[in-house]
Amino acid sequence: MHSIKSLFFCFLLAPLPSQVFADEGLWLFTDPPTAQLQSKYHFRPTPAWLDHLQKSCVRVGDEASGCFVSPDGLVLTNQHVAAEFLQKLSDAGHDYLANGFYAPTHEDEKRCPDLELNVLVAVEDVTHRVNAVVAPGMEPDQAFAARQKAIAEIEKETDNVTGLHSEIVTLYGGASYQLYRYKRYTEVRLVFAPEKQAVFYGGDSDNCEYPRFALDICFFRAYENGKPAHVENYLKISPDGPAANDLVFVSGNPYQTNRQLTVSALANWRDFRLPVYAQVLYRQEVLFSTFGARSLENERRVATDLLVVQSDRKWTANVLDALLDPAFFEKAFQSEKAFRADLASLVSHGSGDGAAGQAALQAFNRIAQAEDDIAQSYNKYSFFEGSSFNPRGFDSELFYIARTLVRAAEERSKPSDERLPEFQDSNRETLELRLFSDAPIYDDVEELKLGSSLTDLAYRFGPTNPLIPQILSGKSPQERAVELVTGTRLKDVAARQQLYAGGAGALKPSSDPMLALAALVDPTARAARKVFDDAAETERQSYADIARARFAFEGHAAYPDATFTLRLSYGPVVGYDENGRFIPPFTTFGDLYRQAAEHQNRPPFGLTKSWQDHQKRLLSPTKFNFVTTADTSGGSSGSPVVNEAGEFVGIVFDNNIQSLAWDFMFDDRQGRTVCVDSAAILEALDRIYEAKALLDELNGGPVADH
Amino acid sequence: MHSIKSLFFCFLLAPLPSQVFADEGLWLFTDPPTAQLQSKYHFRPTPAWLDHLQKSCVRVGDEASGCFVSPDGLVLTNQHVAAEFLQKLSDAGHDYLANGFYAPTHEDEKRCPDLELNVLVAVEDVTHRVNAVVAPGMEPDQAFAARQKAIAEIEKETDNVTGLHSEIVTLYGGASYQLYRYKRYTEVRLVFAPEKQAVFYGGDSDNCEYPRFALDICFFRAYENGKPAHVENYLKISPDGPAANDLVFVSGNPYQTNRQLTVSALANWRDFRLPVYAQVLYRQEVLFSTFGARSLENERRVATDLLVVQSDRKWTANVLDALLDPAFFEKAFQSEKAFRADLASLVSHGSGDGAAGQAALQAFNRIAQAEDDIAQSYNKYSFFEGSSFNPRGFDSELFYIARTLVRAAEERSKPSDERLPEFQDSNRETLELRLFSDAPIYDDVEELKLGSSLTDLAYRFGPTNPLIPQILSGKSPQERAVELVTGTRLKDVAARQQLYAGGAGALKPSSDPMLALAALVDPTARAARKVFDDAAETERQSYADIARARFAFEGHAAYPDATFTLRLSYGPVVGYDENGRFIPPFTTFGDLYRQAAEHQNRPPFGLTKSWQDHQKRLLSPTKFNFVTTADTSGGSSGSPVVNEAGEFVGIVFDNNIQSLAWDFMFDDRQGRTVCVDSAAILEALDRIYEAKALLDELNGGPVADH
Repeated sequence: MHSIKSLFFCFLLAPLPSQVFADEGLWLFTDPPTAQLQSKYHFRPTPAWLDHLQKSCVRVGDEASGCFVSPDGLVLTNQHVAAEFLQKLSDAGHDYLANGFYAPTHEDEKRCPDLELNVLVAVEDVTHRVNAVVAPGMEPDQAFAARQKAIAEIEKETDNVTGLHSEIVTLYGGASYQLYRYKRYTEVRLVFAPEKQAVFYGGDSDNCEYPRFALDICFFRAYENGKPAHVENYLKISPDGPAANDLVFVSGNPYQTNRQLTVSALANWRDFRLPVYAQVLYRQEVLFSTFGARSLENERRVATDLLVVQSDRKWTANVLDALLDPAFFEKAFQSEKAFRADLASLVSHGSGDGAAGQAALQAFNRIAQAEDDIAQSYNKYSFFEGSSFNPRGFDSELFYIARTLVRAAEERSKPSDERLPEFQDSNRETLELRLFSDAPIYDDVEELKLGSSLTDLAYRFGPTNPLIPQILSGKSPQERAVELVTGTRLKDVAARQQLYAGGAGALKPSSDPMLALAALVDPTARAARKVFDDAAETERQSYADIARARFAFEGHAAYPDATFTLRLSYGPVVGYDENGRFIPPFTTFGDLYRQAAEHQNRPPFGLTKSWQDHQKRLLSPTKFNFVTTADTSGGSSGSPVVNEAGEFVGIVFDNNIQSLAWDFMFDDRQGRTVCVDSAAILEALDRIYEAKALLDELNGGPVADH
Repeated sequence: MHSIKSLFFCFLLAPLPSQVFADEGLWLFTDPPTAQLQSKYHFRPTPAWLDHLQKSCVRVGDEASGCFVSPDGLVLTNQHVAAEFLQKLSDAGHDYLANGFYAPTHEDEKRCPDLELNVLVAVEDVTHRVNAVVAPGMEPDQAFAARQKAIAEIEKETDNVTGLHSEIVTLYGGASYQLYRYKRYTEVRLVFAPEKQAVFYGGDSDNCEYPRFALDICFFRAYENGKPAHVENYLKISPDGPAANDLVFVSGNPYQTNRQLTVSALANWRDFRLPVYAQVLYRQEVLFSTFGARSLENERRVATDLLVVQSDRKWTANVLDALLDPAFFEKAFQSEKAFRADLASLVSHGSGDGAAGQAALQAFNRIAQAEDDIAQSYNKYSFFEGSSFNPRGFDSELFYIARTLVRAAEERSKPSDERLPEFQDSNRETLELRLFSDAPIYDDVEELKLGSSLTDLAYRFGPTNPLIPQILSGKSPQERAVELVTGTRLKDVAARQQLYAGGAGALKPSSDPMLALAALVDPTARAARKVFDDAAETERQSYADIARARFAFEGHAAYPDATFTLRLSYGPVVGYDENGRFIPPFTTFGDLYRQAAEHQNRPPFGLTKSWQDHQKRLLSPTKFNFVTTADTSGGSSGSPVVNEAGEFVGIVFDNNIQSLAWDFMFDDRQGRTVCVDSAAILEALDRIYEAKALLDELNGGPVADH
């Protein structure tokens, strides 16, 4: 019989995509990489070190990271993370996204209508409780419903006990369920943001590139009951930043990684998920660019949309190119093949692990079948339903509101644990924050987005789907969009509140064209979601089977894929070679001014007047941006970078282009995480922005009402 | 029995899309709309008037129009038409596209490497000769081959007789074949072009919009044997331009219209031709925009590509929106239904026209079948073969050169009339002009375009087509593009000439990666082309049958769809209503300066220094741009607009957005052709550009060496 050790050896020879090498890893705070840090870097994080870092970190909104940097609730994150909220606070007369913002006193701070911050306070393993409700032989949708019910119950009861917000986190594709308890702040105010040109220096050209020169920072303040929140744990900002080759740590909420995917699942990403998304993004980018070019006010209105689309397009196009590299697939294919051979061998030798091996082998086939189901329904799912409630065929905030109201009327009449997850009581606060937001909605932008997305929808489904003529209602997509946007009264927050409060009785979809549209497509959207959710649940169980077989070999040495929950990663501050040239780890203020001069200060490589005027004040050798091999992905934006002493030495704001495929496979030969140096932050606040009160607070000075 | 008259009456009630109303029509010079002009405008063009206009007109390159404006071969067309050639003449130190050009003397004029001009000299009907070779019962591909052979023979023998270049033109989808004889100029020099900012004022935002402020003009000179060509026919430029409501005429080469399409063919345009093209254009636009944003030199290198893509995208998106309007289809559907009912009635009454009616009815079904064939193979055709030799999957000038060399080696060993049309002797000059052009080819641009198009190709065919791994040769699309572009020696014109001259013997595709790629995909590309050509031939015969049935009712009253040959259209200079507001027919220089001031002179609404400095010199009320209902389409760009006296009063450069769907259905409620006023041309040459020698020549003044 093969020993477990010999099988493990096979892994080393033919690593799965998830196989840990170099400093890879998005580690759980409950299961930190202590051994690896000890052996490679002779550093041992203490429980107190970890606890302090964990509780200093903040999850920002629904897709980013940040940290406390003062005892009075001051939060540091990226400006690009905050861009959506800066735009919502702006109007035709005040463009905080373009021109920046600074509140010298608490009174000047501006309330953000729909931003929430969450701090992870405690973690509890509830795997056995969640799995106990699944009886043997249950169908995937039954198992899914049973787990959802158990999860809702646990979340609800803990809410009552602790007063904290609770979330069940699914790890290892379902091999582990963890109860995360968060301290939540929904009253958040804007303190400081630099002007867009300093944040997005180099624009789309420099995005995801290195060397880089971006002051991508933004300060918010968490409030409780109308007063700045007092927090025990916050990070002290290092005036020096890191040195080359220093070991640094990144602590944040990487959004989602797909490093455990089987080859069949990877192929679907390559063959339609990414390409279809790329097509949508190319269309949207042209749409927003051309609309924005018509006037300064147009540009302001679509600024965030454009930034998000450009960033996603860069990611999608580069990841697609990486997945289309036959070498990538060959590597994934060979390692999966070797693993399956090992599993087969384990089964044939009939040990106690044979059953786990058998289950894992069957899991690969079930995943392939589920991927087929997803492939069949993916277009319908993504255009009618959409992940993140953003259907590609109905790209409109007003449509989102209409759909939410239509579904709320139906869902809220059921017990909480039988509802769609986003309508369960535990998510009510988050749902209502967006639904009742008074952030501006512009008719022209809504018509633009909805008209274009309806055109795409009509193309993709028109020839065969009888719903399309009903959706268009005898008009061209563009005309129909205008009719819907001008005809709805959902722009009025009070109307939304009334409809939401009234439930199914108050909601007469026929009274409002957007509500009518949402009601019309809801059966199709829900049906597509069901197919997708069932396949996802099948995959969850299957990946859990694979994970359990791997645990038998590796223990918990492998970290789970990212799930937008707090993780710790680490690595040195080091440069890399590109086309035979060494890219050093740091850029400096001096480099920035040289760049701008080379480009004759033209957009997107120009500097605003204050940066030009204050050039002499800045110290040319001060480090501006740096790179590290520490592992990150999307939601890591805004994550603090700390040194061994636990001091804040920088903030993550990007990945270089060679690391965009990290979502599928880590590779630190050239891949790097890109950060703003803490030295640059302090010096710019001091000498460019003259933000004395803010600096005083960061330095622990007078803060009474700074 | 129904009389023909009563059937005709049905037509008026339920017009086919091609039914003439208002001032619709792209009329043949051999069959001008004399009766319509006489009855509506009391104007009767004389044969001399028509002959002079015809011979003053010039077909520019392979997709635009222009006219002679002096006896010394001076040609006026649009700058946007010339952009490709301006860019080819430019280098890192001279950007004629961006900054403009003026040659005060003949010595200063710059030779364009691959531009040809054609003047239509004579027309002869050869329908009977071409059709005589088709035996009854021949398969479509046999009929196609037989006609191609007859056409090649006619073109060749007339070349020998006249010394002129001959082309057989297929009209009414194949009901008529005409022999067109052209005087061709391949030695063409650049004389004058304004700076891009004056030509593209308003940029992509204003493109296809009105009101408009664009000086979209460019002067070339035709040469013969190293000397300026002397021409008998040229247009005199009116210093005043047209007045409101004046009847004007447009004479040029509209590229292709699709006004005779059956509903089944229209549905394919709506359901995949236009949407797939839109996807490609969105991708390319983002590609060129982002590449161009990196530096001024990058911007220069992709300037023309970007302009073409933006213009095509605007057309495609708007036409798609128009075709997705159910009202459009309902109209087409109802008129086709009525026509088929009339045909059926004709057949059942068994008159002499019964056979024509029967043939037309069967033709509708054959077209539907052919459209199914096209739908099946369209993606393969357009990505592997591509119309205009521009395969969407291999977007690269070097690939075009490689394919041309690979095919030339094979085709040129056959008799001329058995070759693919572009390799026949009559097209040799055109082929070699592009193949041996020494216009610059930039590695970075080639890698960009080829890499992105290979990614698209891999997405669309990768999962099923075994050719894709061979095309990528174990690399990612981007890596493969770099390997191909840096590895080929086809950038060297001498190498191309050598390979071309050596024929199949000299060509060893394995010696060059781009040649090897072209050879690898050629069988697939040719097979897809064959399916497409066969379907096209079936359709040609079928549309001819429909056209013959229509002739029985209408005579030749209906004009044929555009075929990039000389046509005459007419209509008044009139404004239109839009969203309840009247858009006047003219803009003025004064309006331009007001526009620029409103936009704070920011791009794309800014003015260059010379326009700012010389504001006082220009007369504020001088008419700048105007609109007319005269019928046009794509290739009409650069067409002269003349008045009843035959004087040049303006030049066509665009269509407004409401007329983009004219390619499928004419509608002049809002649709307009957009032109530069001749008064603005003369005044700008005089007061902004101080182009005295050029003005003297236009005014018939001293030209010895102007």
